[in-house]
Amino acid sequence: MISGRCAACKYLRRRCPSHCIFSPYFPPNDPQRFACVHRIYGASNVGKMLLKLPPHLRAQTADTLYMEAKCRIQDPVYGCVGIISHLHQQIRIAESQLAKTQAEIAVFNSIAREAQVQEIEADSNFFKNLLPEEITAAGLRSYGYGSPSTQTFKFN
Amino acid sequence: MISGRCAACKYLRRRCPSHCIFSPYFPPNDPQRFACVHRIYGASNVGKMLLKLPPHLRAQTADTLYMEAKCRIQDPVYGCVGIISHLHQQIRIAESQLAKTQAEIAVFNSIAREAQVQEIEADSNFFKNLLPEEITAAGLRSYGYGSPSTQTFKFN
Repeated sequence: MISGRCAACKYLRRRCPSHCIFSPYFPPNDPQRFACVHRIYGASNVGKMLLKLPPHLRAQTADTLYMEAKCRIQDPVYGCVGIISHLHQQIRIAESQLAKTQAEIAVFNSIAREAQVQEIEADSNFFKNLLPEEITAAGLRSYGYGSPSTQTFKFN
Repeated sequence: MISGRCAACKYLRRRCPSHCIFSPYFPPNDPQRFACVHRIYGASNVGKMLLKLPPHLRAQTADTLYMEAKCRIQDPVYGCVGIISHLHQQIRIAESQLAKTQAEIAVFNSIAREAQVQEIEADSNFFKNLLPEEITAAGLRSYGYGSPSTQTFKFN
């Protein structure tokens, strides 16, 4: 039946056999799909590649052959390899961004550690210069004991 | 001359013409290179693809066709598309690592800001609870003026 022919058999102007190797993967409603793989690999090579594989892997194979053929038509010099190069470049950029960000974190960590050390040193210097009574007085007032305006301290 | 034939003409068992389209890109010392592209695309398709391009782009084209054919032989189901999927996955992993690291930086920044605010508040609370004289005395001693053991302060 003419209307039941797959895209490959339509393209090749032949009768579509009952166990046509192309039929399940090249439906008549997408003639461009077969035209692409035919232009790059040739019908005979596509048929051979599909026949060599077990049936459950053929749909995926037809899809990837179509993708590669489309790439080669769009970019006759680089084809899929052009996409691979571009992705490698993207990975290099992402990895260098990641390394930069990790270096920033390392800087943050070192600044934070330094600030902590300086803070401890500053606190200990300040308290070293206060008399014990001054520290106690300040401490007591911070807890609400005694009012600075009425209290009297005498240090000797 | 038989020994001067390119890998393609040797493979196809034919005389190598003087302007052979394969000759510059398929040297006789690498017969596997032509065998690969022949197996996947067929000699006629490779020749057509090379002829359609200007001579300065043909070497690159032969290289990428060889790479794609080799990939298809190694992985008959996915070919180069398998590499592309793998690279896409690597990019997703690198991007998610980058996002995680950038989030870590944001957390660091927010902790640092919070710590700064708390430090300023703590300092201002401590000084609020010290009398002006205590601050001055501590300040003077830190510059080496007056000795705590001999000095007398009286606060009213």
